[in-house]
Amino acid sequence: MSNHKTDRLNQIKIVLVEPTHPGNIGSVARAMKTMGLGQLVLVNPKKFPHYEASKLAAGAESVLEHATVVDSVTEAIKSATLVLGTSVRDREVTWPTAEPRTTAEISFEHFSNHENAEVSILFGRESSGLTNEELDLCQQQIRIDANPEYSSLNLASAVQIVAYELRVENQKALNLDTFKSQSKQTGHDERQGAATAEQKAGHLKHLQSAIETLDFTKAKPPTMLMRKLTRLYNKADLSIEEIQILRGILSAVEQRVSK
Amino acid sequence: MSNHKTDRLNQIKIVLVEPTHPGNIGSVARAMKTMGLGQLVLVNPKKFPHYEASKLAAGAESVLEHATVVDSVTEAIKSATLVLGTSVRDREVTWPTAEPRTTAEISFEHFSNHENAEVSILFGRESSGLTNEELDLCQQQIRIDANPEYSSLNLASAVQIVAYELRVENQKALNLDTFKSQSKQTGHDERQGAATAEQKAGHLKHLQSAIETLDFTKAKPPTMLMRKLTRLYNKADLSIEEIQILRGILSAVEQRVSK
Repeated sequence: MSNHKTDRLNQIKIVLVEPTHPGNIGSVARAMKTMGLGQLVLVNPKKFPHYEASKLAAGAESVLEHATVVDSVTEAIKSATLVLGTSVRDREVTWPTAEPRTTAEISFEHFSNHENAEVSILFGRESSGLTNEELDLCQQQIRIDANPEYSSLNLASAVQIVAYELRVENQKALNLDTFKSQSKQTGHDERQGAATAEQKAGHLKHLQSAIETLDFTKAKPPTMLMRKLTRLYNKADLSIEEIQILRGILSAVEQRVSK
Repeated sequence: MSNHKTDRLNQIKIVLVEPTHPGNIGSVARAMKTMGLGQLVLVNPKKFPHYEASKLAAGAESVLEHATVVDSVTEAIKSATLVLGTSVRDREVTWPTAEPRTTAEISFEHFSNHENAEVSILFGRESSGLTNEELDLCQQQIRIDANPEYSSLNLASAVQIVAYELRVENQKALNLDTFKSQSKQTGHDERQGAATAEQKAGHLKHLQSAIETLDFTKAKPPTMLMRKLTRLYNKADLSIEEIQILRGILSAVEQRVSK
């Protein structure tokens, strides 16, 4: 399937992690639909479905009707090839961070490089955002620059800004498609496709157990080390083939060490 | 007065023309304050002040307290040097129209050209927007691109998007000021710096010798494998610290294997 002339907005999922207020879910659906986004995933919503969500969706009920409810972030991002997480807080460990505009550009670059691309964007709890463990699952953190004296962006407003930037970028991509002739043939190698979040997590688990066999972790706290390695591999935006190579090396290490 | 080092956001007024729902006024105040805007003008609001406005302002009550209430658009824009009006509708008579991003750029160009600049941005009624007579008072119409099948942008969402673009543009202007007037400060963490080509090559050499110890390369031609690994690590754009971590792991592998 070719990406040419297709609307990439339907390859984007908005994932709300443990939203408390059903009204916010409705407002998010409205914000999404105005910008042309339709795929909503809810991780453990406190109340859903709920009349307040439907009321605030105000014409965007279709987004709520098609929403998926899951019970973990891992489940929500299972098929994603690029995972982004939003944050307004400054963190001690610094994840690769970019502004909404840059992450929209990154997403569309990802779309044009990978046929099977699916971008999931995580939005955290109203009160406390995403946990560090959840951010570890993201290749990139989206930081919406806000007034330092009052950074209290409503959940729907955060989604509105991110969705707006995605729409602007999508419009650029559609214009480019129209500009390009459709004649390009691909015939690409499957294995060059982007690895999914599940494949990446599998590799990192393998890496961790290999490191444990090496007793390397005595000196450093493994969580911090694994976080740094996670970040490193997230930056690399691994393909399926690369994961296979890395896992091959790890298996060889484990075999030799256990001898 | 020079514009250098000043925050132009306080030279911008958000003007709501005949807003019907007090809740919307509160949400607009919140949207404004998150982006650093503080000046709100209300033209004939149906209900104001109102407890619902204060409730939805959620910490941005200061914007409501300082809001000005006037009884005509002419009065609202009296001291403005640039007037912009928002619209999602297509009109028969076409005013000069631009997207939020472009109008933010226009506004900041206006600031840098005029010392006494004051930009007023009109947002119309929830139901019917601005009248043609009101748009006649604007130098430029801001058109927020939305889903043609569902363009029902909430008043606060429209303000949020426009305010967001103004904040991005303001940040650019402030950065430019800082760049112009200050000598660069560094003091950053050395190890987070990008690794040099030599450091990267050193790591790859180390990786190759470690793989050779593993006898992993029997099956695959090492040149091709190393080329793929080189590409992988190039994509990751390694920092000095990351190289140190990777080399630490490789040394541990070599030690264990040689035992």
